[in-house]
Amino acid sequence: MSERETDQAGPSLEGLRQRLTAFAAARSWEPFHTPKNLAAALSVEAGELLEIFQWLTPEQAAAVMSDPDSAHRVRDEVADVLAYLLQFCTAVGVDPLTALDAKIDRNERRFPVPGAEGGADGGSGVAAGPDVNRGVTG
Amino acid sequence: MSERETDQAGPSLEGLRQRLTAFAAARSWEPFHTPKNLAAALSVEAGELLEIFQWLTPEQAAAVMSDPDSAHRVRDEVADVLAYLLQFCTAVGVDPLTALDAKIDRNERRFPVPGAEGGADGGSGVAAGPDVNRGVTG
Amino acid sequence: MSERETDQAGPSLEGLRQRLTAFAAARSWEPFHTPKNLAAALSVEAGELLEIFQWLTPEQAAAVMSDPDSAHRVRDEVADVLAYLLQFCTAVGVDPLTALDAKIDRNERRFPVPGAEGGADGGSGVAAGPDVNRGVTG
Amino acid sequence: MSERETDQAGPSLEGLRQRLTAFAAARSWEPFHTPKNLAAALSVEAGELLEIFQWLTPEQAAAVMSDPDSAHRVRDEVADVLAYLLQFCTAVGVDPLTALDAKIDRNERRFPVPGAEGGADGGSGVAAGPDVNRGVTG
Repeated sequence: MSERETDQAGPSLEGLRQRLTAFAAARSWEPFHTPKNLAAALSVEAGELLEIFQWLTPEQAAAVMSDPDSAHRVRDEVADVLAYLLQFCTAVGVDPLTALDAKIDRNERRFPVPGAEGGADGGSGVAAGPDVNRGVTG
Repeated sequence: MSERETDQAGPSLEGLRQRLTAFAAARSWEPFHTPKNLAAALSVEAGELLEIFQWLTPEQAAAVMSDPDSAHRVRDEVADVLAYLLQFCTAVGVDPLTALDAKIDRNERRFPVPGAEGGADGGSGVAAGPDVNRGVTG
Repeated sequence: MSERETDQAGPSLEGLRQRLTAFAAARSWEPFHTPKNLAAALSVEAGELLEIFQWLTPEQAAAVMSDPDSAHRVRDEVADVLAYLLQFCTAVGVDPLTALDAKIDRNERRFPVPGAEGGADGGSGVAAGPDVNRGVTG
Repeated sequence: MSERETDQAGPSLEGLRQRLTAFAAARSWEPFHTPKNLAAALSVEAGELLEIFQWLTPEQAAAVMSDPDSAHRVRDEVADVLAYLLQFCTAVGVDPLTALDAKIDRNERRFPVPGAEGGADGGSGVAAGPDVNRGVTG
């Protein structure tokens, strides 16, 4: 992973992951950072990101970054979600990039590009992401 | 970001982000991928990751990766969380790495390494991560 | 609480709470039902309810109960959320009805009916429920 | 539902539901209270309840109500979760008590009391509540 760490274009995922590990170690926070606690914290932070949008109309939501305070809040919650995701991955020994790469591979087989048989579902919203609703695949 | 994209050590965050964008575009899913919907989806997936751990004892949680089925499920949910986080960031124009880097900078000032005044809180759990509870900072 | 229990108009909240307690006891599930686990489970189930709506347009969301499968899923997730909320309340010794009653009292003082000073915020979405965003009240 | 409303033992669920409806109407908040927004808000509040517990050890979590500030916070979040659940139910026309009653009926058939075949799963945590993990039932 050394190339990621030395990326001169900006902070790298691996560099940030290591920085978070050192940050927690310096403050003796490791005992709190169990997989279960970190999964809970990740979920809590994702809720805080959603909270920004919960009452917004689509138009207001689309403009959220044009207000400096909202924009700061969005960046702050994105950072928290990513931080806990990386710390969770450290705790369980998962490489998130490899995991996502493999998932996209699976989804490319599972949701063929329309023209193939999956096309009719495109407008239903049930398959509008890399994950699908239980109702469809369960 | 070109160095990240061409990282030979494995998939890069930027490469995966672009792959997700192309994946959604090929299936005409962009209309679903509003910031609000993606924030909701991110929260839902974080909940699915937490679900794996909700009834586990600390010992069972620590061993979650030693069972192949659980390990697969963990990797799958990590991938979903990261996917929606990246897609959310694309939708609002936020660079998650820069956001996290800035947040760690802020937290280093906010939580000085013990020896300084922050030390006494270490055991309370209120400051056990890059984010803190509202009760403390609000 | 005897009147609630013997309500002939249908199942009562207190009756259901007791039924859940007996259900868990008969299966020796109490050791799992710690406050922390139940709070996690409640959050997971709330995420499953949200999942039903995550990709829906406002029009589709408004029609969710007209499809029998979706309607069943909604009722099922509502039941799960309420079940874990009641079990959580049992675990910590909180009466949810008294808690909500007190909260509405507080919110009536906090959000005076428009005509008073709170009116101008009505359209911003920041105060669109019994809870408010941290940005406003924190 | 008149008996619930007039329950002299304290506030009733139906009475609170109606009070919430009147509260929102007086403030012209109904346009925000779509099923999708309320499901998001419910999920956000459930996350806030979980946040109280995220770093706590089992011992600390068990003692959460003995600290007045934590106890207030727990009651406050319980109230918020119940409020949004009731408002969601109003928006979609679901009776939460009937829904839960029916779910417990289903679960009694699905998880026979040990002595029957379900017993061996008791320690696995996979069936430790009225809902079960997808991995088991999916």
